Amino acid sequence: MSLETVSTSRSHGGVQGVYRHRSRATGTDMTFSLYMPPRAGEGARPPVVWYLSGLTCTHANVTEKGEFRRACSELGLAFVAPDTSPRGADVPGDPGGAYDFGLGAGFYVDATREPFSRNYRMWSYVVEELPELIGAHFPVDRARQSIMGHSMGGHGALTVALRNPDRYRAASAFAPIVAPSQVPWGMKALGGYLGDDRQAWRKHDAVALIEDGARFDSLLVDVGDADPFLTEQLRPEMLQQACARAGIPLTLHLRPGYDHSYYFISTFMQDHLRWHADRLG
Amino acid sequence: MSLETVSTSRSHGGVQGVYRHRSRATGTDMTFSLYMPPRAGEGARPPVVWYLSGLTCTHANVTEKGEFRRACSELGLAFVAPDTSPRGADVPGDPGGAYDFGLGAGFYVDATREPFSRNYRMWSYVVEELPELIGAHFPVDRARQSIMGHSMGGHGALTVALRNPDRYRAASAFAPIVAPSQVPWGMKALGGYLGDDRQAWRKHDAVALIEDGARFDSLLVDVGDADPFLTEQLRPEMLQQACARAGIPLTLHLRPGYDHSYYFISTFMQDHLRWHADRLG
Repeated sequence: MSLETVSTSRSHGGVQGVYRHRSRATGTDMTFSLYMPPRAGEGARPPVVWYLSGLTCTHANVTEKGEFRRACSELGLAFVAPDTSPRGADVPGDPGGAYDFGLGAGFYVDATREPFSRNYRMWSYVVEELPELIGAHFPVDRARQSIMGHSMGGHGALTVALRNPDRYRAASAFAPIVAPSQVPWGMKALGGYLGDDRQAWRKHDAVALIEDGARFDSLLVDVGDADPFLTEQLRPEMLQQACARAGIPLTLHLRPGYDHSYYFISTFMQDHLRWHADRLG
Repeated sequence: MSLETVSTSRSHGGVQGVYRHRSRATGTDMTFSLYMPPRAGEGARPPVVWYLSGLTCTHANVTEKGEFRRACSELGLAFVAPDTSPRGADVPGDPGGAYDFGLGAGFYVDATREPFSRNYRMWSYVVEELPELIGAHFPVDRARQSIMGHSMGGHGALTVALRNPDRYRAASAFAPIVAPSQVPWGMKALGGYLGDDRQAWRKHDAVALIEDGARFDSLLVDVGDADPFLTEQLRPEMLQQACARAGIPLTLHLRPGYDHSYYFISTFMQDHLRWHADRLG
């Protein structure tokens, strides 16, 4: 598992790095960013917060616009941002060139349909390969991990957390897609990657997972009430109902006037990181 | 003076806007960003901090990566980021296509040489036209302004402040070019825009302005000691010497390990904004 350093810059007392490696999960080169906070001393290993990005994004969007470093520095958190899909000349994209499937739109699933099943294995990449790689190359505490994400990445964070409640001590999301089986973005993606077997979709749908028995200690979600995707694609009320029925404590903030952009995310990033830090010990 | 709203997004309790207008100074459309903090009440008018960007930048770089909004929101500061040059199909650029002259590299001067003198009038734009436009369209306090900038924009901020000490209550810079008459970037730009009359250059050179009698109450400068431009282009020690001789209090921080990027700027943005707020009252 070799790792190429693309860049490192000192920031807020720690180091913001960008790294590239050959992925066995996707069969492509993959790029991610990692912020290491200033370390408390020799041998200190900070906990790791995973951030999964939304449609069209790479690692760069949150790295440049997320405003997470000051809080991560103060709270002593490492922060990892993977890409949202495999990329490369040989990687198939959306047949119609749309932004919501294929490149930049991996939806954090292992595709089973051709021609996507060869490269689109973002579930395995995010849940297995990248944590191993980071544990091997950086002084982080793999026993203390948490996960968050935005939009498609909020979907990813919630589903990854619900299926791995013992690994992630906290999970939160900004404007997540909570029930992809029931909204246009998700139906296109899950159908395209997994085919027509709707039972297979349920493992990649936070609301369905909760209905099927998945549990998590507590969840934090922020959504802007001026988000243009609120009522058609995000539908946080479905998560609220599922959590209420299942007895999962959900803190859901509907933020007046906020939209879907990083101007929204960066506003509440510090609150989310504090929530994570409280649970990461 | 009409103004077109390109976008607005709520952020950190205020509104981050991007606006476009026809500029009489440059003869082109110009785009800028303005953050309005949450207002203390009806009729409240926040002071204005001007941020001048560096080579290759537009308004977007600091708007996306500067991490200024949280501090501006807490301190009640409006924050304006102009573009760094005129732009458009008819605007001449660097004859060789270089990044350090022409488009994205206006150097905050009014060019006197053809063919640049028609459009490259960024001094008039930043010092006269844009403040008038903003005063006319937004509820800000024009009696309380301050200015800061990065690299080429640090040069702009220092020269604008030194030539208008009654208008700007504070001035600071990240990694500024302090003596453009004596370094490669500046000699190319000042020669290209102003011609060979070195006396004309002195009005656009912070060190020369101080030598020629310009004064400012106090200045704040941060530079990273890992900045690749430190010794050839920035040379903060020349500002330090000029300020010492002139009795201008200069707070100069050489930051260990920091480079020239927004990872550096964003780290110290909050400190600079607090310095400005203290002086803006």
